[in-house]
Amino acid sequence: MVLDDTAQDLLFRQAFTADRFTGDPVDDDTVRAVHDLVRDGPTAFNQQPLRICLLRSAESRARLAVHLSRGNREKTLLAPLTALLAVDREFHRRLPEQFPQFPGASDLFTRHPALRERSALLNGALQAAYFLVGVRAAGLAAGPMSGFDEDGVNREFFSDGRLSVLFAVNLGRPVPGAHTRGPRLAYDEIRTTL
Amino acid sequence: MVLDDTAQDLLFRQAFTADRFTGDPVDDDTVRAVHDLVRDGPTAFNQQPLRICLLRSAESRARLAVHLSRGNREKTLLAPLTALLAVDREFHRRLPEQFPQFPGASDLFTRHPALRERSALLNGALQAAYFLVGVRAAGLAAGPMSGFDEDGVNREFFSDGRLSVLFAVNLGRPVPGAHTRGPRLAYDEIRTTL
Repeated sequence: MVLDDTAQDLLFRQAFTADRFTGDPVDDDTVRAVHDLVRDGPTAFNQQPLRICLLRSAESRARLAVHLSRGNREKTLLAPLTALLAVDREFHRRLPEQFPQFPGASDLFTRHPALRERSALLNGALQAAYFLVGVRAAGLAAGPMSGFDEDGVNREFFSDGRLSVLFAVNLGRPVPGAHTRGPRLAYDEIRTTL
Repeated sequence: MVLDDTAQDLLFRQAFTADRFTGDPVDDDTVRAVHDLVRDGPTAFNQQPLRICLLRSAESRARLAVHLSRGNREKTLLAPLTALLAVDREFHRRLPEQFPQFPGASDLFTRHPALRERSALLNGALQAAYFLVGVRAAGLAAGPMSGFDEDGVNREFFSDGRLSVLFAVNLGRPVPGAHTRGPRLAYDEIRTTL
């Protein structure tokens, strides 16, 4: 590893999904700094489908909470900030400027909506992961959530149908305390060589 | 940012998708070290669907190349190592050990195959992104590829239907040279606040 131990700890080894946060706010400059770092991460055709909807007001948070599983509601209402990580299902409209090397890219995704949908999901999830790494780089912890009523969230927040939610993420400074990590698969369980 | 500038540069700002690599090999211990770092990254229900198939032999690389778009073939045949990043479509079988907090998780995904498929894609892509970050942490460059014949690759390498490819990634030490980065979307273009 070229990355030093401190950075390895900050981003992965000592970083944990957080459920409870201190009262410290997460201001917009911090989220901007996270984005400005991780927006350089690669996506296919430089498509960058990720969009971020910050739920800062109590009212917006309450609108989300009803769509979450019961165990995720209180911690979301109490978190300093919640972000919806969504994808622009019409990302291909911007490809002529974002990826001029392949002028046919926009047409390709126009003609193949299922390919476009899959590409948005995969590349949006790549960017969601970069974002989670960036949150940790900022010294914060993330509490990503899935398994909620995605259609309900989309209707509630993205009623024009253009954006589609992937994850909701609580953000803040974690309350110090014991953390446990679920068992991870070993390299020899997940790797084959041909 | 808490992460220092050197690490920010290594992982994002000075890191580039690579097409051409030096002759330096990428040995298995390096890939293992990458995995051992990034396996701590979070996935929903700790599901960890990602599987890595390393194409080390010339014969395996040739089997992949025929399924790639023409512009990706030569660079893949010449790369020190190519990894197929795939997901285990039956990831839910291991949830009882990986996520004992929710004993019903495995049944949930058994009953809802479309949810399982989407969850594998999204969480596998999260892990693919962690892997790309880890490759950079090891001082290497990645050349991720998509847009290939996924069904063809799956038939060629994962004929029992259990694994499904997300990305192929060339790995190595990049040839020094000029890099250009495609334009990235600005924070104010991708963020809304409610």
